[in-house]
Amino acid sequence: MPSPSPALIARFADIVGSAHAITESADMAAYLVEHRDLYQGRTPLVLRPGSTDEVAAILKLAGETGTAIVPQGGNTGLVGGQIAQGGEVIVSLSRMNRIRSVNPDDDTITVEAGTVLDQVHKAAEAADRLFPLSLGSEGSCQIGGNLSTNAGGTAVLAYGNARDLVLGLEVVLADGRVWEGLRSLRKDNTGYHLKDLFIGAEGTLGIITAAVLKLFPRPREVATAFVAVDDPATALKLFSLARGMAGAQLTACELMPRAGLEMVLKHAAGARDPIAAPYPWYVLVELASPLEGSGVSGVLQAILEDGFEQGIVRDAAVAESIAQAQDFWQLRLLMSEVQRAEGGSIKNDVSVPVARSAELIARGIEAVKTIVPGCRPIPFGHLGDGNIHFNFSQPVDGARDAFLEQWDAVTGAINEIVADLGGSISAEHGIGLMKQHLMETIKSPVELDMMKALKQAFDPKGILNPGKVV
Amino acid sequence: MPSPSPALIARFADIVGSAHAITESADMAAYLVEHRDLYQGRTPLVLRPGSTDEVAAILKLAGETGTAIVPQGGNTGLVGGQIAQGGEVIVSLSRMNRIRSVNPDDDTITVEAGTVLDQVHKAAEAADRLFPLSLGSEGSCQIGGNLSTNAGGTAVLAYGNARDLVLGLEVVLADGRVWEGLRSLRKDNTGYHLKDLFIGAEGTLGIITAAVLKLFPRPREVATAFVAVDDPATALKLFSLARGMAGAQLTACELMPRAGLEMVLKHAAGARDPIAAPYPWYVLVELASPLEGSGVSGVLQAILEDGFEQGIVRDAAVAESIAQAQDFWQLRLLMSEVQRAEGGSIKNDVSVPVARSAELIARGIEAVKTIVPGCRPIPFGHLGDGNIHFNFSQPVDGARDAFLEQWDAVTGAINEIVADLGGSISAEHGIGLMKQHLMETIKSPVELDMMKALKQAFDPKGILNPGKVV
Repeated sequence: MPSPSPALIARFADIVGSAHAITESADMAAYLVEHRDLYQGRTPLVLRPGSTDEVAAILKLAGETGTAIVPQGGNTGLVGGQIAQGGEVIVSLSRMNRIRSVNPDDDTITVEAGTVLDQVHKAAEAADRLFPLSLGSEGSCQIGGNLSTNAGGTAVLAYGNARDLVLGLEVVLADGRVWEGLRSLRKDNTGYHLKDLFIGAEGTLGIITAAVLKLFPRPREVATAFVAVDDPATALKLFSLARGMAGAQLTACELMPRAGLEMVLKHAAGARDPIAAPYPWYVLVELASPLEGSGVSGVLQAILEDGFEQGIVRDAAVAESIAQAQDFWQLRLLMSEVQRAEGGSIKNDVSVPVARSAELIARGIEAVKTIVPGCRPIPFGHLGDGNIHFNFSQPVDGARDAFLEQWDAVTGAINEIVADLGGSISAEHGIGLMKQHLMETIKSPVELDMMKALKQAFDPKGILNPGKVV
Repeated sequence: MPSPSPALIARFADIVGSAHAITESADMAAYLVEHRDLYQGRTPLVLRPGSTDEVAAILKLAGETGTAIVPQGGNTGLVGGQIAQGGEVIVSLSRMNRIRSVNPDDDTITVEAGTVLDQVHKAAEAADRLFPLSLGSEGSCQIGGNLSTNAGGTAVLAYGNARDLVLGLEVVLADGRVWEGLRSLRKDNTGYHLKDLFIGAEGTLGIITAAVLKLFPRPREVATAFVAVDDPATALKLFSLARGMAGAQLTACELMPRAGLEMVLKHAAGARDPIAAPYPWYVLVELASPLEGSGVSGVLQAILEDGFEQGIVRDAAVAESIAQAQDFWQLRLLMSEVQRAEGGSIKNDVSVPVARSAELIARGIEAVKTIVPGCRPIPFGHLGDGNIHFNFSQPVDGARDAFLEQWDAVTGAINEIVADLGGSISAEHGIGLMKQHLMETIKSPVELDMMKALKQAFDPKGILNPGKVV
């Protein structure tokens, strides 16, 4: 789409006021450069509306003039969904960061799209509640982006994806009309469930401006173990055992390979191996209850004992304090970041049916080692969701660039196995720019047609985040 | 829409074979008469396809010839969504009742649309798992209908609505193409979430032919209490207390008024009052864990003790056996049925934000008693979901017909209060024929337009369940 004229830029700027319309490239950097330096955005204009009405006016003008729009939250997306590629106007929701209401009696919170996830956590905690969505970027990502990408994270096992945490939405449509869907209802069967259209649509069907989110009782008794196992197949057995005994009290089941743990131990200050002897694989298991003295520690103990008797558990460290539990978690949470210190890293965010994770890992390692001998596989992540961050670090003595040139080959090999196992090539990160070219290969013509029909119905002029998703 | 010609009827019959094409009115009764005798269906033809391919062929022919179709499951819907009004061909999914696979390792089960809910329960149990969806009609309702209406029931508090239990769908579209969306993934962020379009759409956007459903660990320790409280506001306090202490282990929190309990005690053989003295309101509270000896009984005890100390709980009976817990549940589950024995009953299935239920009940009783002095309010149901079945039985000495003539007035009064409280006029039963005329009053023009746009995108010829939902 063509870049807007200076006169049109001035009309857009008038909507938000000149203080909130950025046209100087020096001031734009924060909206154009993303975390992994994979994409360099370009835009003639960044708008920072302060209200739903301003977003509505922007989209009305955009619709009338055929101006393309890229909605942007905290700019923490990992697949470039938030990146403007030239003529698009960026609409940053960051000024719309008001917590409109907290209702502990209903277990709901109503927030504007630009609210940083951490602020939602804090507001929930202040009301003695939990908002469970938990991501590495929670200090800067915004709830609007979280919902637009249906964010996952470490709390999905017990609480679901971002989609599952939403009761209602306020959305500005492509023609500037506002859908007032901020309901706080647990049950409502009066027609099509429109909110689910916008969640995970990466801003291509409308701009989410506010949401009613679910809150939960705060966990008061948490039991955390760092468990050594032989391989991913055994890790899956541990997951089955833990889920079968703890049910909904099982709040995390995260897989880590020894090679990943060693990278954390090497590069993260203060990191310590919880278990004296080395083991090939680890599982972080966590149980939680809102009731102190509920006995989740005992349940964890029973899981570990049963696991030991069944030959599933090799060794285990149980956290004896909150600080120690946090130390265990840090080993898991730093596993992505430390790969940076080990040279080039090729990243995949894939999922398979839960029971197929071990097969995915075995076949993936074998396939990629053929493509890049000596590369170091670091498959880790949300075992209980079947979601593996299937990363590969470059060979120790290899060249970074030469390794990264294999990105498509490596990703292609993993995606082929994922497809064979009935999996998804993007479990929680989305499509964005990175995976757009793969849509034709992973979706049937019927499904692509359905998606195009939705896009046509909700954004007939194609002004919302063009080139993303559909 | 016009009735299909005899020649066209013959073409439809050829698809399924004459043994499965019903044109004799004597054989049609089961597809035309529904439970409450509110609607008398009319159709020239009932088709009973045996496969997805046959459903696809039916819709292809229907699309080409502009023939209207009413998909039908177990014909247990309470709002007439499954009723044909004249020229429509009924497509009964009941022959498609195969359980395609059970995968306890993935906690999934794949079933065809015509599978009776009870059969899904049994297949899950045979694999030592739970499929939690629990409805009064579970012995005859079919999973396709459950998903098309986003069924609720008594297990929503812990496990969610039918929508939340679905991982993937197979759907035949209005033009006869098949969307193969039978995924078993817990996380998949590759584009629009199409399954959520069809769930709850009452067959107006496509015909669900199969689904991948979530399974859960079976509860092995269950603690059930029948608790006496003063009023709905206190019942809400008990719910908050229980949820705060039990979290996800709280699996039910059902409200019942004394008047409803008395009807059950009067009309249900063997029903006994669990508590010696009468109290104005009751709450059935249930906790569950998959682990025997997990301590949920102790948690329930602690909830009741705290509740007693806080003046919330007046008295409570704790089930000492599975049989006794079932007896408690029967009091709740029979509460709808026994109203039939007390003459005319005007029924509302409404929801409000959870904390507003008490206000809904108080205002609703006051408003309706003005309309029909002497009527007997029986508001009961899913307190933890904010979903009240707000029923009214006729005055003891009144005339049935005269009372039922007040249906619209009573329902209108309740719906007005529901709207004022930000609630829904159909929490779990859907829109169907019963509430279609209210859509313009409960939805904004923007929302109606969005729904029409979806209908237009997925069923441009309007052949799927015309006159329902949109």
